Amino acid sequence: MRNLLVELAYDGRAYHGWQVQENAPTVQQTFQDAWQQICRVRDNVVGCSRTDAGVHANMFFCNVRTDTSLECEKLVTALNAVLPDDIVVKSCREVPCEFHARYDCVSKEYIYRILDSSVSSPFLNGLVWHYKYRLDENLLNECAKCFLGTHDFSGFCSAGSSVEDTVRTVYRSEVTRQGDEVVFRIEADGFLYNMVRIITGTLIAVAQGKIKKEDLPAIIESHERALAGPTAPPQGLYLNRVNYGGEIR
Amino acid sequence: MRNLLVELAYDGRAYHGWQVQENAPTVQQTFQDAWQQICRVRDNVVGCSRTDAGVHANMFFCNVRTDTSLECEKLVTALNAVLPDDIVVKSCREVPCEFHARYDCVSKEYIYRILDSSVSSPFLNGLVWHYKYRLDENLLNECAKCFLGTHDFSGFCSAGSSVEDTVRTVYRSEVTRQGDEVVFRIEADGFLYNMVRIITGTLIAVAQGKIKKEDLPAIIESHERALAGPTAPPQGLYLNRVNYGGEIR
Repeated sequence: MRNLLVELAYDGRAYHGWQVQENAPTVQQTFQDAWQQICRVRDNVVGCSRTDAGVHANMFFCNVRTDTSLECEKLVTALNAVLPDDIVVKSCREVPCEFHARYDCVSKEYIYRILDSSVSSPFLNGLVWHYKYRLDENLLNECAKCFLGTHDFSGFCSAGSSVEDTVRTVYRSEVTRQGDEVVFRIEADGFLYNMVRIITGTLIAVAQGKIKKEDLPAIIESHERALAGPTAPPQGLYLNRVNYGGEIR
Repeated sequence: MRNLLVELAYDGRAYHGWQVQENAPTVQQTFQDAWQQICRVRDNVVGCSRTDAGVHANMFFCNVRTDTSLECEKLVTALNAVLPDDIVVKSCREVPCEFHARYDCVSKEYIYRILDSSVSSPFLNGLVWHYKYRLDENLLNECAKCFLGTHDFSGFCSAGSSVEDTVRTVYRSEVTRQGDEVVFRIEADGFLYNMVRIITGTLIAVAQGKIKKEDLPAIIESHERALAGPTAPPQGLYLNRVNYGGEIR
């Protein structure tokens, strides 16, 4: 049996996230349907992450343990031929049989895109968070730095998560601007449920004067969800990079 | 009576171009409907250009002679509230009553976006021409330079155009690459029907070895449509800039 590592990118607008669920279209479901159509068998597909409804992926990995004998390159072409246009297979390669797309991930990077403009863009509906009032990207960048390092992020996690260990290490956390677009970029060894969206909402709360920059360290250490900002909407969020260690990197 | 100059941007995927036509949704129709809903009168709207079905606009101007007393800023907000998300009003201002969005235009710039990648992007369907084979942007840029200056472009015009004067002056014509995206940018005092798409198709024909770079000047001077390349598909084309002279600039 082979273990295939498949790289995807997807526009999440039409999907209720990655994970299969009843009565709602998901990326995993759609991918598994395409896989079954090509390989004639419903192999189990393991994603590197769940993503929320409406969240996008510039890079997403899944691994599939399969008996298919199709060459990787042909599998890419065949899957893209049957997948809808908003899900694209970028590559496929064989990995050791014990490789697991989620457990073997050493870090992930998300970006959160904010269109900072009084009027919207006709091309970016559902692809950015449109924020009408001028943001100070330098202030936001200073705030983003407060999240660097190892912290118990339980205050930046939505209810409904069953994770026990809420300590994560943030390697990179920065805000930059390119024209009208303000981008928050964060890399960590892992993320709690809604963590990036809550941090983004907290940065915006500082921009709005609702939270003071000086209070951020104490808010992080308080572990109180109520002290952080609101959860930013899903459409600005992209899983941007997934890093594996060892030979898979 | 006021004459209002309205700046739009639109995603052309859902529209059969700008110009009102029977039995097909167009940007002009949609804009006029929104205008009527806000101003309670069906004022005549004059666009700066026709665009083809599926073609986009990063910048588009129209002028409206109207009796409405609504302030420009309020008109922008109100129109955006009723327009669909793929058409955005960027600005509105009062101009002299004789100003005409099409006749007073001194030059226009189009860009043609080509996604040059073996696999597509889930975010760019209908927004670029996906070309799977590696393009040499330096070669294309050299070819683009052949179109600079004043020429009779009748060989780069689709049948069905009734324009008599087919001489146009090209001020800028260049090809650049940013990552996987190859962009052809052309500015001229005017464009014939399908001119940018036929020039783009001709550039690609050179990349494919079907037309020789050295032959381009003779092909332009031949005025023979059959010697130029095929018409590139509409989805990569954007009206990118519209320039007016005098006080409107």
